[in-house]
Amino acid sequence: MKNVYKQYIKKRYKPKRNEIVCEFYFEPRKKAREAAGAIAAESSTGTWTTLSTMQLKRMAKFGAKVFELKKNKVKIAYPLDLFELGNMPQIYSSIAGNIFGMKEIKNLRLVDVYFPAKLTKSFKGPQFGLQGVRKILGVKKRPLCGTIVKPKLGLTSKEHAKVAYESWIGGLDIVKDDENLTSQPFNKFKQRARQTIKLKKKAEKETGEKKIYMCNVTAETNEMLKRAKFLKSLGNEYAMVDILTAGWSGLQSLRNELQKLKLVIHGHRAMHAAFTRNPKHGIKMSVIAKTARLIGVDQLHIGTAVGKMAEDKKAVLENIAALKNKMSGIKRTFPVCSGGLQPAHVPKLVKYFGHDIIIQAGGGVHGHPKGTKAGARAMRQAIDAVMKKISLKKYIKKHNELRLAIKKWGYK
Amino acid sequence: MKNVYKQYIKKRYKPKRNEIVCEFYFEPRKKAREAAGAIAAESSTGTWTTLSTMQLKRMAKFGAKVFELKKNKVKIAYPLDLFELGNMPQIYSSIAGNIFGMKEIKNLRLVDVYFPAKLTKSFKGPQFGLQGVRKILGVKKRPLCGTIVKPKLGLTSKEHAKVAYESWIGGLDIVKDDENLTSQPFNKFKQRARQTIKLKKKAEKETGEKKIYMCNVTAETNEMLKRAKFLKSLGNEYAMVDILTAGWSGLQSLRNELQKLKLVIHGHRAMHAAFTRNPKHGIKMSVIAKTARLIGVDQLHIGTAVGKMAEDKKAVLENIAALKNKMSGIKRTFPVCSGGLQPAHVPKLVKYFGHDIIIQAGGGVHGHPKGTKAGARAMRQAIDAVMKKISLKKYIKKHNELRLAIKKWGYK
Repeated sequence: MKNVYKQYIKKRYKPKRNEIVCEFYFEPRKKAREAAGAIAAESSTGTWTTLSTMQLKRMAKFGAKVFELKKNKVKIAYPLDLFELGNMPQIYSSIAGNIFGMKEIKNLRLVDVYFPAKLTKSFKGPQFGLQGVRKILGVKKRPLCGTIVKPKLGLTSKEHAKVAYESWIGGLDIVKDDENLTSQPFNKFKQRARQTIKLKKKAEKETGEKKIYMCNVTAETNEMLKRAKFLKSLGNEYAMVDILTAGWSGLQSLRNELQKLKLVIHGHRAMHAAFTRNPKHGIKMSVIAKTARLIGVDQLHIGTAVGKMAEDKKAVLENIAALKNKMSGIKRTFPVCSGGLQPAHVPKLVKYFGHDIIIQAGGGVHGHPKGTKAGARAMRQAIDAVMKKISLKKYIKKHNELRLAIKKWGYK
Repeated sequence: MKNVYKQYIKKRYKPKRNEIVCEFYFEPRKKAREAAGAIAAESSTGTWTTLSTMQLKRMAKFGAKVFELKKNKVKIAYPLDLFELGNMPQIYSSIAGNIFGMKEIKNLRLVDVYFPAKLTKSFKGPQFGLQGVRKILGVKKRPLCGTIVKPKLGLTSKEHAKVAYESWIGGLDIVKDDENLTSQPFNKFKQRARQTIKLKKKAEKETGEKKIYMCNVTAETNEMLKRAKFLKSLGNEYAMVDILTAGWSGLQSLRNELQKLKLVIHGHRAMHAAFTRNPKHGIKMSVIAKTARLIGVDQLHIGTAVGKMAEDKKAVLENIAALKNKMSGIKRTFPVCSGGLQPAHVPKLVKYFGHDIIIQAGGGVHGHPKGTKAGARAMRQAIDAVMKKISLKKYIKKHNELRLAIKKWGYK
């Protein structure tokens, strides 16, 4: 084993309260100890050879420590001084940076991170969080329900607003832009925002319910901030962003700006599965969820276990735990189930994940045989049935929209 | 096969000049046609069920088209109107978004993207590029050589500046911050920048050569822009950024700002291997390279094939091609080989990748038995030997620093 890596193994070490602790799944190319040492070195103070510029005292102060090493599992403690408080890109460049590409390892996956209180407090966390969102809507207990305007792309601003309106009128709380709809020629941002927010207000008046429009501001940072300001000027309460394709720097900037504007952030996670899906390599989605919460995303997509995406129930529960577990006073992020859902999924979603979820159906609303408004009704009926503890089989007898939805898509 | 996916398969379709074309490697869960259709649908206009809001005419206009489908390879053409010009996060949310997480596929990898001229021109591209950087340095032909200050973390600002100074004095062109060094308590950004740039000017005077300091500005967007401005105010010509942990929104903002400041961007790719390393899933590094060039990174890390990182020669050559191939008038990005390098690697690097590369050695400089300055000399001697077409074996006879380096690390 290379001496330069050996010094990072301290099996008896007990992490201090103010250290970052990471757990990795790893498959070493050769020896596990060498690979584990290489990970700790590369992500803290080390490199592949001995250095003339390295002093042992300094090394002891700043070096990361492998304190647990079992078959394919390594836990590493990092002194807080290695990190810049409030700088998420820097933290990722350390604990999720070069290490994924090292020759010493065949596979490496960051499966958990513990952020100590001092670091946690250097980030804003959600401004509103789960409770804040419930307060805005005035909905205390039931799951929130929403839709994504579909088709994903191709509707004009006017058509978009109309589909949104019918969704709200039908009984949904939330309408969300698609993650790849920003400001395309057929549906420009400002026009869409103006027209959709206008009809949102109309829907609120007509239904007597508070409605939410999650308008996608994803873009270059300054453009993104401008779009958020524009939403505020129209009286909207929300901005939506693709947290990963935008990236941590832009997300942190947006979070800062939305503090001033008092807007809620809805976070979409497009691209996550490029690095979260392989169980042996990359970064676990629950780590991304924890990170997004720390930065201050109020609502985040976390999978469905029952829809079109690949995550299973266990993975979704872990994502939810990352959003809801205690975290040095940081507010809880509202978990969002979205992707291939339809009304018949509702009972299982609530059974699996509880009432504190946002259920979004795109195709499962606009694909209703009688159109969007009926589809929205069917979704809301499914939620109402679950809250009343009545089975869907019974509920469809007096609720035609739900009956037709289930006729098309079946029970799940 | 689901009807909703079938309509996206158009095997006789010929992509138009103004379409984005993506090539994916994929492994379907069941049928290849269904999986390919699902990818095209999810990344353009479709969803998992038929829609009442979808008009067939619109569909034909905006739908992506699978026009090639062979064993594990699918090519898809996307109408340009699906995208927002100049918005890289949006483009990634489409062609590299949800699709990685779909149940229909077991594995999916974006292996190539063609960006049409109209889209390409909506981005800035490198301000300086390969030729611009050569001009700044006044070095016409030889590979540039540089170092990363090591240990990665733990040196004070003063020590950092001193290590940098010795590297320049020893003969290196470039000194670069480590990717996870931003502004930590032991080495604050402003202090480091001030002290290092001061010694850079001293080194320039003493050697009569132009020197470069790539100072890492990675942070939340506005902080990043402030740091870049600060570098400019000190007379520095460069800013360095971790392009992936910062993310596309922040990178685009930085590029815009550096246009005004006339600073060169050095791009580090920390975290890339989380999604580029698995040959079956994620995004290929050459796609990231092309993207970074389009946004306007002047220099980018692209692997070494011979050092501590896992990429082989073929992969590095593909990355270089992405940085140098013709691209609608966009300047070429300077390829940077970095990671586990030492002087004896130089002949092979030049043989593999030509003269137009930047060779960076961290441990391979500061790990020299006689210290940093001698290590820098050894690196420069290796470059000189290659340029004079003299073998290292012969060159070490009259060049003691190179001889000692090779004594420690051997020929590679």
